[in-house]
Amino acid sequence: MTDDVQAPPAPSTEPRHLAAGDVGIVRPRDFAHPGPFTFKSGQTIQGFTLRYETYGALSATRDNAVLICHALSGDHHCAGWHSESDGKPGWWNNLIGPGKAVDTRRFFVICINVLGGCQGSTGPSSTDPATGRPYRIRFPFVTIRDMVNAQKLLLDSLGITELHAVMGGSMGGMTAMMFAMEYPHFTRRQVIMASTANESAQAIAFNEVGRQAIMQDPAWNQGEYPRDGGPRVGLGIARMMAHITYLSDAGMDRKFGRRKRGSAGGEAYTFDAQFEVESYLLHQGQSFINRFDANSYLYITKAIDQFDPARAAGSLELAFAPVQAESLVVGFASDWLFPPEQNRAIALALLRAGKRASYAELATDLGHDSFLLESDELYALVRGFLERGEAYAFDFTI
Amino acid sequence: MTDDVQAPPAPSTEPRHLAAGDVGIVRPRDFAHPGPFTFKSGQTIQGFTLRYETYGALSATRDNAVLICHALSGDHHCAGWHSESDGKPGWWNNLIGPGKAVDTRRFFVICINVLGGCQGSTGPSSTDPATGRPYRIRFPFVTIRDMVNAQKLLLDSLGITELHAVMGGSMGGMTAMMFAMEYPHFTRRQVIMASTANESAQAIAFNEVGRQAIMQDPAWNQGEYPRDGGPRVGLGIARMMAHITYLSDAGMDRKFGRRKRGSAGGEAYTFDAQFEVESYLLHQGQSFINRFDANSYLYITKAIDQFDPARAAGSLELAFAPVQAESLVVGFASDWLFPPEQNRAIALALLRAGKRASYAELATDLGHDSFLLESDELYALVRGFLERGEAYAFDFTI
Repeated sequence: MTDDVQAPPAPSTEPRHLAAGDVGIVRPRDFAHPGPFTFKSGQTIQGFTLRYETYGALSATRDNAVLICHALSGDHHCAGWHSESDGKPGWWNNLIGPGKAVDTRRFFVICINVLGGCQGSTGPSSTDPATGRPYRIRFPFVTIRDMVNAQKLLLDSLGITELHAVMGGSMGGMTAMMFAMEYPHFTRRQVIMASTANESAQAIAFNEVGRQAIMQDPAWNQGEYPRDGGPRVGLGIARMMAHITYLSDAGMDRKFGRRKRGSAGGEAYTFDAQFEVESYLLHQGQSFINRFDANSYLYITKAIDQFDPARAAGSLELAFAPVQAESLVVGFASDWLFPPEQNRAIALALLRAGKRASYAELATDLGHDSFLLESDELYALVRGFLERGEAYAFDFTI
Repeated sequence: MTDDVQAPPAPSTEPRHLAAGDVGIVRPRDFAHPGPFTFKSGQTIQGFTLRYETYGALSATRDNAVLICHALSGDHHCAGWHSESDGKPGWWNNLIGPGKAVDTRRFFVICINVLGGCQGSTGPSSTDPATGRPYRIRFPFVTIRDMVNAQKLLLDSLGITELHAVMGGSMGGMTAMMFAMEYPHFTRRQVIMASTANESAQAIAFNEVGRQAIMQDPAWNQGEYPRDGGPRVGLGIARMMAHITYLSDAGMDRKFGRRKRGSAGGEAYTFDAQFEVESYLLHQGQSFINRFDANSYLYITKAIDQFDPARAAGSLELAFAPVQAESLVVGFASDWLFPPEQNRAIALALLRAGKRASYAELATDLGHDSFLLESDELYALVRGFLERGEAYAFDFTI
């Protein structure tokens, strides 16, 4: 997902973080699970921490929670601001807040940095209590199921009795799907956006090139690198490349075209960035390496590539057999990473498995990242699905 | 373009290089231009060498030459074999040979490694006679026009009075277009395949990430690296990524899907390549770094990105005003790097400029590299266009 998703400008008369419809200043918290945790691989760690944020209030019946699941490069900070001087709100601030599509006056919204991540939750850069040194690539192999199982322990610790909904885009959609399969009686609704039930060879290929860029960088050093060092070149290249896959051909042409930097516009005989799209991507790569751990990038992309519930079950329809949730699946027309037809296939498999599911395809030329961007249609879909409850009319066509 | 384009298996009773329809064993030659050569940038070098191959015989009237133009990673060796033990023929061996679509019994076929290249022609890895050291990134900035101007000197030295045709795919299509614009009375026909009159922002972006992978590799060292060393990691990553753009989503799914290596097929908890598509790409990257110069990769991708004849002329139609050639433009349905509509736009601009041009779109799921692959439809199109001459019926729909 992009770094440059911004909330709409707030009125100048008040600080942005106090704008109407915003959750304001938020503070992350940590959940520490003290006991052992066994991964799908069979490996065990002695406890873990998950960093999370919540917005809104848990109801007396503890059943109004909406779990937000983040994508590869996202984190637990999906709404609000971290301080009065914070330059940027949470990544889904346009969707979540009082009166917004995910209405924090009504729902208790929670978002958790995934296990294996690097924004406060336990992952490869965390200290292994058994050795006093960072896990690095001794951290157990993480799957989407492991992420979900760890998050369920956090939700239990908060006394949440069931999820009003779980929702996410891209990898967040995989996480949502896994919640609905793994904890069917806990998960009343799922919203899956710009996701897939298993990646195409092309999507795996892009992730693999990113991993190779990291692992072939000598500074990766088999995962052993200092906190402020490491394979910055490889991680930056991986991010630049991946970023192209989050946009669309048409969207990039509209945003950048063949425009060149500076006023000249003529031919500059240099290998420096000349086209605007070049400097944009360079910026994306550079800002990413300052906030993301390269080993986490390896772990999380592998979790995404391995996600394939149909494989073990025999078919996606069979994999969805236990699901109790009602489902809304949203594809975006110009998303070529996890294209509309892969999202539609999720909804179709749910319907074939006898579940209540609907699919909507939104017209956009903004590519995979469309789920993060302003869209009144998307807001209306989400609001309608979350608020109409059992009476929700599944009136979208497949 | 891919490395794995292979000629169809020949009968086992004779060596492959003597198979019917093949040009047999071929030997590259060098053309040395002794005088100064001034690039579009204004920079000058004191002479250059171009390596080339020819197949067939130049007619008495010296007007049966067909110039083949190679793509980014191609070279002058487009047909035949270099020795009896050669494991692989030239990159367009399926198209060129006695009785083939480009019939060497009739045409004098010539293919030239581009100026700026690294397969025998003068480029960044060549020795600068002024210093006795390799040019490296002191080599002048190369444009498609420079490549064409240098090739014209070679053709003149052979006494070729006019080209029966110039043809190429991808960058080779740009080269062909430039020949028809720059030497209109010399160029009777042009065949442009899987090409573009100017790249999209997305295509520029992919090239830029490849260049960054090379230039951010510490072993690049501002272009100063030993012949057997250099930014092998960066060049390999650039190639792996670019290779994805030469294929198609559907083609990759058909070729690799989510198949894993080995018999297990289960989940392997490792960062090693597991999916077949991963090891395929690793192989592509590794084989490329043994045959290509990283600085040449920078120069040639920049030449491709800068190619934009419409910009200086005001429109593509105006840029094509001098063209005398008849044109055949071929797009491939699943090519998302230089998509069909960009090829169609070339043909349309030629027609609007009052030229004879036709456009054909071939159905294929093999992506950008389709122009290199076996296709009876493509063979028929090319043969018809080359052989029917003035009577050629422009009966394809635009």
